Amino acid sequence: MKATILTVGTEILFGSIVNTNAVFLSRQLNFWGIDVIRHITVGDNRGRLLSALSESFKDCSLVLVTGGLGPTEDDLTKETIAEFFGKKLVEDKEQMEILRSWFSSNNRTMSPNNIKQAYLPEGSEALPNPNGTAPGFMLKDGERIIFVMPGPPRENIPMFLDHVAPKLSSDDNGHLVYRMIRTIGIGESDLETALLDLIDGQTDPTIATYVKDFTAMVRVASKRRTEAEASAAIDDMTAKIRERIGRYIYSENDEDLEAVILRIMRQRGLKLSSAESMTGGLFAKMITDVPGASSVFDRSLVTYSNNAKMTELGVKKKTLEKYTAVSSETAAEMAEGLCRASGSDICISVTGYAGPGDSDAEPAGLFYVGACAFGKTTVREYRRKGARREDVRLYACRQMLRTIYELLK
Amino acid sequence: MKATILTVGTEILFGSIVNTNAVFLSRQLNFWGIDVIRHITVGDNRGRLLSALSESFKDCSLVLVTGGLGPTEDDLTKETIAEFFGKKLVEDKEQMEILRSWFSSNNRTMSPNNIKQAYLPEGSEALPNPNGTAPGFMLKDGERIIFVMPGPPRENIPMFLDHVAPKLSSDDNGHLVYRMIRTIGIGESDLETALLDLIDGQTDPTIATYVKDFTAMVRVASKRRTEAEASAAIDDMTAKIRERIGRYIYSENDEDLEAVILRIMRQRGLKLSSAESMTGGLFAKMITDVPGASSVFDRSLVTYSNNAKMTELGVKKKTLEKYTAVSSETAAEMAEGLCRASGSDICISVTGYAGPGDSDAEPAGLFYVGACAFGKTTVREYRRKGARREDVRLYACRQMLRTIYELLK
Repeated sequence: MKATILTVGTEILFGSIVNTNAVFLSRQLNFWGIDVIRHITVGDNRGRLLSALSESFKDCSLVLVTGGLGPTEDDLTKETIAEFFGKKLVEDKEQMEILRSWFSSNNRTMSPNNIKQAYLPEGSEALPNPNGTAPGFMLKDGERIIFVMPGPPRENIPMFLDHVAPKLSSDDNGHLVYRMIRTIGIGESDLETALLDLIDGQTDPTIATYVKDFTAMVRVASKRRTEAEASAAIDDMTAKIRERIGRYIYSENDEDLEAVILRIMRQRGLKLSSAESMTGGLFAKMITDVPGASSVFDRSLVTYSNNAKMTELGVKKKTLEKYTAVSSETAAEMAEGLCRASGSDICISVTGYAGPGDSDAEPAGLFYVGACAFGKTTVREYRRKGARREDVRLYACRQMLRTIYELLK
Repeated sequence: MKATILTVGTEILFGSIVNTNAVFLSRQLNFWGIDVIRHITVGDNRGRLLSALSESFKDCSLVLVTGGLGPTEDDLTKETIAEFFGKKLVEDKEQMEILRSWFSSNNRTMSPNNIKQAYLPEGSEALPNPNGTAPGFMLKDGERIIFVMPGPPRENIPMFLDHVAPKLSSDDNGHLVYRMIRTIGIGESDLETALLDLIDGQTDPTIATYVKDFTAMVRVASKRRTEAEASAAIDDMTAKIRERIGRYIYSENDEDLEAVILRIMRQRGLKLSSAESMTGGLFAKMITDVPGASSVFDRSLVTYSNNAKMTELGVKKKTLEKYTAVSSETAAEMAEGLCRASGSDICISVTGYAGPGDSDAEPAGLFYVGACAFGKTTVREYRRKGARREDVRLYACRQMLRTIYELLK
């Protein structure tokens, strides 16, 4: 079954608010095995809403609508949908009763505008709304089904879960299961090349590659009659993928690398510290984003100035003068100084030029990652030319994580 | 001028990611006086993309497309748009050159998939992408204009600002000017109450209050025939707002508080350091997000363990035992120890419980901000109950910045 999610909301078109309804409903529909093939957002505009409904029902039998059910003049979702299906609006006696008692128990007077909220398209089924004044409704017309819900998430989320989802699950849509496989040390193009014949031959499971925050991922999805069948199909495909790119996989479960590293180190009773210059605390921030990091993470010395590098980490003045702060030598002394100061099992350091500004003296994107671990110091040089300051910093943190992960393997 | 924002992205239809591109582009287009009347999202699907283009150009002369420009098989945005306009894809020599040099300077091999990224629809103008391998393009066809950009925000945001916005501003859409006034130390409700009569009576300029990342802001916008007229109207309104809430305003220019603080400290030749526990490097990260922070920011000692607090900052074992790590006493000793270690003019410290998990022993949301500056130590206690881990951490950083700003006033 294919579905379109249609949002009515001027604030979304202004960019004032994020369309979280579309995110929530997409996840839910996918979970129930329904393919969401389109999102459309329009304002409170009769013509555009009619056009969006036509566009949606061209190739979808299911449309979910949120927004535009309020009591004010400009809310016209219900009227327009009734018009689209050639229905009149009629009073829903039960909803009128609920509405009247809501207003009396909240000590508020009911305006004529509110009365219109209890009118629904003829032949539709009301969807109760315990969190607001606008009921939703479901309308079936031959093969076509439309669910219409209010816009505020605290009204439409419970309405979907309590009254829409049960109706969808009874339909025979099959079960979709998916798995996100994350990699480190391989780019998206190489990943795709390695999996090309699997991707080309795909029917079910389907395979797709993604990149997010410098992490290349493979998404494997299967839609079968039962959840067990879909899971089994994904297990088979995952095994094939593992054969080809196993050494780059760090999670078959959509985990962040920092969480995986912390779990491994916790199991082995190891401690981690960092010495940051260019990343300015971002590495420590990423590690401590993970709840429970304190059992592994000891400290990060963010030595932004040369003086701090000398006093906190014992980097030699001579080293800074001879090789500058951005050098393999400084990265090594930072990691070694941190090792002495913290006694942590893995001490990772970074120094570089994040930009903005790119010159021969300070080439933006050049950085060094040092590691002092298990009695050995290593340094690696990286160049990420032409990237923005925040990307250079994030990319450097990824390489620090990659270094730690490789030390643990 | 009316516009549709068209997003190509399967992940959005899965609900895996939020369509932040639509938010950013909507804000931008509205800023340039262009009415965004529709958002559409489809997957990498030729037929649906063609249909979405038809639907969009029915009533819009401008369409902005993001996504589906990657190097892989399933990316077909460019091919489909070329087909829609009846154009062939031809090699863009300049983009091919840029692509080749990007791969060589990043020490990566160029795959055949990457080569296709330098092909653009005939007659289109390339939009350079310094942050990735996919160039964007603009295509004009009679009254119809389409801008096509890559999906990742780090690529399309700079591309829009540098290459799309300048082309839009030349059109005669009237001139919208707006100003974002930022405050610290006042909540959104109080802000709105203070400005209520101005907000109620508004026609042009319009006034609206917002909250983002714990910062309450006032947006003043005016759309007039010329930019000078709009600016003058905004100046008048800003003066009225300043009369009422002037003491809470830290920027009339949409600046981050960290940037304002760094500017003031740079002008006065002052140095800043931080000692972080709960925030785990986030404070330093926020400060060093600002280019040029190094002239003011000396170091941050992220002392996550008690041992690190003792060895790096000289917090007394007795203090930790008697008062625990989350106490006014520990925050004070952290700030004072940092002062001795760094010699910075302003030394700010934080310790607390970010959660998750809330107990009598570790009440999530309780934290202390210490400051040792100009020969005086102060500590303030905060409670942010029921907030998420990341919000507690961000809120604590805001309070650290507020403390520094008040010390500077």
